[in-house]
Amino acid sequence: MEELREQVLRANLELVRAGLVIYTWGNASGIDRERGLVVIKPSGVPYEDLTADDMVVVDLDGRVVEGRLKPSSDTPTHIALYKAFPGIGGIVHTHSTYATAWAQAGRDLPCLGTTHADYFRGPVPCTEDLTASQIAGEYEKETGLAIVLRFEGLDPRHTPGVLVRNHGPFTWGSTPAEAAYHASVLEEVAHSSFVSLMLNPAAACPVELEDKHFLRKHGPGATYGQ
Amino acid sequence: MEELREQVLRANLELVRAGLVIYTWGNASGIDRERGLVVIKPSGVPYEDLTADDMVVVDLDGRVVEGRLKPSSDTPTHIALYKAFPGIGGIVHTHSTYATAWAQAGRDLPCLGTTHADYFRGPVPCTEDLTASQIAGEYEKETGLAIVLRFEGLDPRHTPGVLVRNHGPFTWGSTPAEAAYHASVLEEVAHSSFVSLMLNPAAACPVELEDKHFLRKHGPGATYGQ
Amino acid sequence: MEELREQVLRANLELVRAGLVIYTWGNASGIDRERGLVVIKPSGVPYEDLTADDMVVVDLDGRVVEGRLKPSSDTPTHIALYKAFPGIGGIVHTHSTYATAWAQAGRDLPCLGTTHADYFRGPVPCTEDLTASQIAGEYEKETGLAIVLRFEGLDPRHTPGVLVRNHGPFTWGSTPAEAAYHASVLEEVAHSSFVSLMLNPAAACPVELEDKHFLRKHGPGATYGQ
Amino acid sequence: MEELREQVLRANLELVRAGLVIYTWGNASGIDRERGLVVIKPSGVPYEDLTADDMVVVDLDGRVVEGRLKPSSDTPTHIALYKAFPGIGGIVHTHSTYATAWAQAGRDLPCLGTTHADYFRGPVPCTEDLTASQIAGEYEKETGLAIVLRFEGLDPRHTPGVLVRNHGPFTWGSTPAEAAYHASVLEEVAHSSFVSLMLNPAAACPVELEDKHFLRKHGPGATYGQ
Repeated sequence: MEELREQVLRANLELVRAGLVIYTWGNASGIDRERGLVVIKPSGVPYEDLTADDMVVVDLDGRVVEGRLKPSSDTPTHIALYKAFPGIGGIVHTHSTYATAWAQAGRDLPCLGTTHADYFRGPVPCTEDLTASQIAGEYEKETGLAIVLRFEGLDPRHTPGVLVRNHGPFTWGSTPAEAAYHASVLEEVAHSSFVSLMLNPAAACPVELEDKHFLRKHGPGATYGQ
Repeated sequence: MEELREQVLRANLELVRAGLVIYTWGNASGIDRERGLVVIKPSGVPYEDLTADDMVVVDLDGRVVEGRLKPSSDTPTHIALYKAFPGIGGIVHTHSTYATAWAQAGRDLPCLGTTHADYFRGPVPCTEDLTASQIAGEYEKETGLAIVLRFEGLDPRHTPGVLVRNHGPFTWGSTPAEAAYHASVLEEVAHSSFVSLMLNPAAACPVELEDKHFLRKHGPGATYGQ
Repeated sequence: MEELREQVLRANLELVRAGLVIYTWGNASGIDRERGLVVIKPSGVPYEDLTADDMVVVDLDGRVVEGRLKPSSDTPTHIALYKAFPGIGGIVHTHSTYATAWAQAGRDLPCLGTTHADYFRGPVPCTEDLTASQIAGEYEKETGLAIVLRFEGLDPRHTPGVLVRNHGPFTWGSTPAEAAYHASVLEEVAHSSFVSLMLNPAAACPVELEDKHFLRKHGPGATYGQ
Repeated sequence: MEELREQVLRANLELVRAGLVIYTWGNASGIDRERGLVVIKPSGVPYEDLTADDMVVVDLDGRVVEGRLKPSSDTPTHIALYKAFPGIGGIVHTHSTYATAWAQAGRDLPCLGTTHADYFRGPVPCTEDLTASQIAGEYEKETGLAIVLRFEGLDPRHTPGVLVRNHGPFTWGSTPAEAAYHASVLEEVAHSSFVSLMLNPAAACPVELEDKHFLRKHGPGATYGQ
């Protein structure tokens, strides 16, 4: 648990370093699948003050198990994703400028090139609007369920991120560090693909190229790296 | 007064740190409601030279009460806001790039998502043009009055900022620090919402979502933070 | 002369600090009107290596009077401006991103707000195309003459900058430091005004507001600063 | 070889300094023409950990001759370019934001001004789509061949860069350092020219001006620098 707290702290600080969050915005979490416990950033604490001890441990019902601070208000969203996506080990949420812009535009982020395809297979989907009663109810949990619903037919390990409509991006990965990495990649492709569409509204990427790049880095045939 | 000078100095320096001002642009102030005194940045002094002692103290008629420097040329605007909005304790003015761009476009900044809704309920309004005689008269005071006029029917604690047409943003808060914080938030949403509208000119946010997020952070039912 | 070399060095380094130039791009110069001598950055030397001694002194015919390095290739442009605009003491040329974008677009930069009006009265004009024979001839001098031609009827002290078509901005001021300051202001308004026009192609600023702000900072009635 | 490893390391680190790459993205290489050996960044190693010893030496058939790490997955693209363009000594590949945006848009980057013309004569071309069988085959080599095909009739020393469609930029030069320099220039003109076209879709540069600037810096009549 000590180790996971450290990993989650480092993932949170990586969001600051990469320019994806300001003030207390955003959050990163990690899960210990064996114990069924999630470690997450506390709510509303500035990043410069965060220590590993500040990280909050909650169970999969959202109950605080360890820690003297309140967990992130987005905790129920993280839990819904951990429950529905058993293959993931870390989750990140930011309000990074360009990914948030796409979420606010309510558009799926199409795959326009290999930067995107190296990490995300196909578009990064944008969720549907929540209904008024979902918003009035268990809003943060419903946000998670809307993500899960949007991923019907999609493999969350092949599409490690989503745009929550009128809100912002969530990304995930096998570890908290990888989730933070994917948050940076998503912001970068959200930026360049915005510019691409301004230059050419019909911009698109051949699916063979998408597959080639995704599979260079993922699965049994991966050749990238050492 | 010592303490307020320090707070106002720190709020001014936060504008530099957050990249919202260059050279001598912008200004932050704070008010001591009991004494009816406003502390504000001096006019045209570079930020790197500012000390707490340089802050100027003026009364609500704009007369200098303490300080050897001239107060910011925008002082009458600050005073008009402090008089009209009794619930605020600090004001910030910047020429930050994207908020200024909206002000120059003469458009209200619509709420397109939760980043905006966490801090501003509904659009950040843009003022009307001043008339030629208002410009020729007590221009800086008239600027403040135009803001106040634009806020008829709005609660300045729920909409802690404005776009002064063809000029730039003013933000406020319960303290100078919060006013500076709101200046950063406004610049961020001005940036992402510009991109959103380029991607989807019909982008909009359901009002239920706006209310949900605003009320998570404000009022008796607030749940965010520690 | 020692003092002017130092001023010109500092103005050149300010361009780097403000993010207006990379590598060896851009240049700043200053003039000693009494001696009729111009101090300018040497050609193609990286900023991090520059010393005051590297600055080159040329006379108003462009002959090197002091210094062991070749002067900037843009020296004849600077000299043409110093000759035509007797009220200026320093000149800066950059390829800063947004000002260059306007120059490449061949559009005058309109005054859309007070940030612009505080420093430039009316649009920052864009020059006409040079003819093929002007380009083939004394190109750098012709560039200066095209600027001077474009300023017929304009006061260069009220419009301390220009967009050279398909090239980039030149700015000037009473000192090299002020010329560099104006280069930063021009880049900032080129950026925000681009965004304004994307948001509202009909964006414009009332002339009374332009005059008010310009005259707050310039001329006998100026009230800004200490 | 020691010296070339150092040069290639420094060119790789320059990409980080200039903000053109994040994490393990991008790569720089250099060639020793006499020995027919290429030095290139290893695959998937973070820049902050790179040492000169980590650089991999391959022959022109792509076989590792020295080094304990796997070479960049883009090595066959680099080799194809070194074989086809005998005048070049270094190659750089990045996913820098604006150059990648143009590649994703599938548009040649037109020359709109002198910043571009100082380094690239005429447009920076965008390659054609690879076919499905090229992607399924020796993909990285085919990418190099598609660049070579696109350069029929072009002089790679006059156009030291290309946009690989739906992928990103490759640039080159007489040394690894110059290739990295050209990557920065390309990103800068990709940015400003995007803005220019938003402001004026018909923006263009007279060919005489393009030639003038290119030839000020290149060839026997060059006058720029010391």
